Amino acid sequence: MTSPVRVRYISCRTHRDVARAIRDMSIRGAPAIGCAAAFGMALAAKERPFKRSKDLTVQLEKARLCLGATRPTAVNLFWALERMARVYKNPKILNLPMALEQEALAIHTEDRASCHAIGDAGARLLPKKAVVLTHCNAGALATAGYGTAVGVIRSAHRQGKIKRVYVDETRPYLQGARLTAWELDQEGIPYEILTDNMAGHILKTEKLDAIIVGADRIAANGDTANKIGTYSLAILAQYHGVPFYVAAPFSTVDRATPTGAAIPIEERSVEEVVKFRGFSIAPKGAQARHPAFDVTPAKLITAIITERGVFSPRRLLR
Amino acid sequence: MTSPVRVRYISCRTHRDVARAIRDMSIRGAPAIGCAAAFGMALAAKERPFKRSKDLTVQLEKARLCLGATRPTAVNLFWALERMARVYKNPKILNLPMALEQEALAIHTEDRASCHAIGDAGARLLPKKAVVLTHCNAGALATAGYGTAVGVIRSAHRQGKIKRVYVDETRPYLQGARLTAWELDQEGIPYEILTDNMAGHILKTEKLDAIIVGADRIAANGDTANKIGTYSLAILAQYHGVPFYVAAPFSTVDRATPTGAAIPIEERSVEEVVKFRGFSIAPKGAQARHPAFDVTPAKLITAIITERGVFSPRRLLR
Repeated sequence: MTSPVRVRYISCRTHRDVARAIRDMSIRGAPAIGCAAAFGMALAAKERPFKRSKDLTVQLEKARLCLGATRPTAVNLFWALERMARVYKNPKILNLPMALEQEALAIHTEDRASCHAIGDAGARLLPKKAVVLTHCNAGALATAGYGTAVGVIRSAHRQGKIKRVYVDETRPYLQGARLTAWELDQEGIPYEILTDNMAGHILKTEKLDAIIVGADRIAANGDTANKIGTYSLAILAQYHGVPFYVAAPFSTVDRATPTGAAIPIEERSVEEVVKFRGFSIAPKGAQARHPAFDVTPAKLITAIITERGVFSPRRLLR
Repeated sequence: MTSPVRVRYISCRTHRDVARAIRDMSIRGAPAIGCAAAFGMALAAKERPFKRSKDLTVQLEKARLCLGATRPTAVNLFWALERMARVYKNPKILNLPMALEQEALAIHTEDRASCHAIGDAGARLLPKKAVVLTHCNAGALATAGYGTAVGVIRSAHRQGKIKRVYVDETRPYLQGARLTAWELDQEGIPYEILTDNMAGHILKTEKLDAIIVGADRIAANGDTANKIGTYSLAILAQYHGVPFYVAAPFSTVDRATPTGAAIPIEERSVEEVVKFRGFSIAPKGAQARHPAFDVTPAKLITAIITERGVFSPRRLLR
């Protein structure tokens, strides 16, 4: 966990470097993971010279398995690997390394464009002087750029509509305090960090216009997996009559997952909960839980904001 | 913020030492603050020889103001100071220093007894193999001993009823991870620490029998101020049909506060939110909020467990 004071770039020269960066959360955020995995496949094709095309295909299948085993919940990872597989399984393509690089670049470019479209579509939902709350980081650092939930906030801010953004710090990994706050800081958007347990109090004592979050996987029925804490926020939003928006590209929508019950929820190391920078914050040997995501049922989601427009969650695939 | 690995005692030799310990949260938890303030008054009477009884009264009034200015929300502080004032304003008492010490000892003894009574009354509400969730620390470290919410858990555990306790870590001060987990560890009660944003997911995916919390002030209508995050938990409990219990002695009930709207909510330093052991967890100069408490309306509270029995929150003062 690095401090938000320093910007450091990590060079990935092989698909294994990319897999490691995804697994240890140097790259995180569903769309960013998808983009990274695509570039990981492009790197795999260039890691050494392949004399026979079959050797290259074996290498790419191995790389796909390696990258696919990094994290289970965000579907953009599998979506991007599937897109890359359609390229290397296409017998008509002669220069596979170049084609794979182009496909990865296309995924990256499309994601960036999607974020801008999501941002603009979402900004239309917000009133003037909007006070919004967001959770985790669904920003430029979670996508190819601009962000999904943060993209909505950016677009609204450019239209002069944002009065204040409440940023959940988002334990245990503090993506809100470390990443979203940093992005908003860079853009000059007014924000205040909250500990995750403050949202109810803020919803009760102030007028909020919306809660906006990203997504790691949206099931066919609109149920949405996102960073742990999202489900609690959706219940709090409903209780206080505040709209609850999910902002995500269609690459996050998983037709093969009928409902949220079928979304695998990653359980990460409890060390990430009970230690902070090596310091124990709990008794030695303390038991803890670390589900990294939760599932918000479609009925608690006011609308899903996509690059193709704003949908009622149940009508996303109709 | 000390690690839960080390137990350290702080000697308070003057009422100012006690006030400092309350202000910097070396002593925290509403009943413990009340006990400490009472002993602070007893110390004030012995800090130097007072030739005239008027000099002693002036000293005691100053000490009362000093101790009363430490923290605004927990009413046990003011309740204890009022009890001590009734002693030193009683013209019939000749040896004030001794009478004040006896009164402080009585407050301490009564609080301990109240906790045991609360624990036993609350344990009767729990089924066998109970899975409960608690927030912050309403334990021995927050009272004269045994605890209120943790007292209920202790009594239920002694009856063999506790399967598991989920402990909210309770940001920003981590009373759950540092203190409650430590108390349960000492007692051999099975527990798992959660980050505060996991409660919704746990309530949805597992069968919980109760959420049990302490209180810092209960208004005459049953509205209850407690550690920030309590209100969110109460909403989540209602949404999932899980009983939500407040465990507190009558010294926490404030007849003079008609509803929760009149309870002052302490706003503490944002440094406690954006720094951890001196490390920034947010960009330099980041804005943040730090309401230390929130108010849960009576309608979200299933029952209030007191030393006099279990009450519907609206019937507490009837």
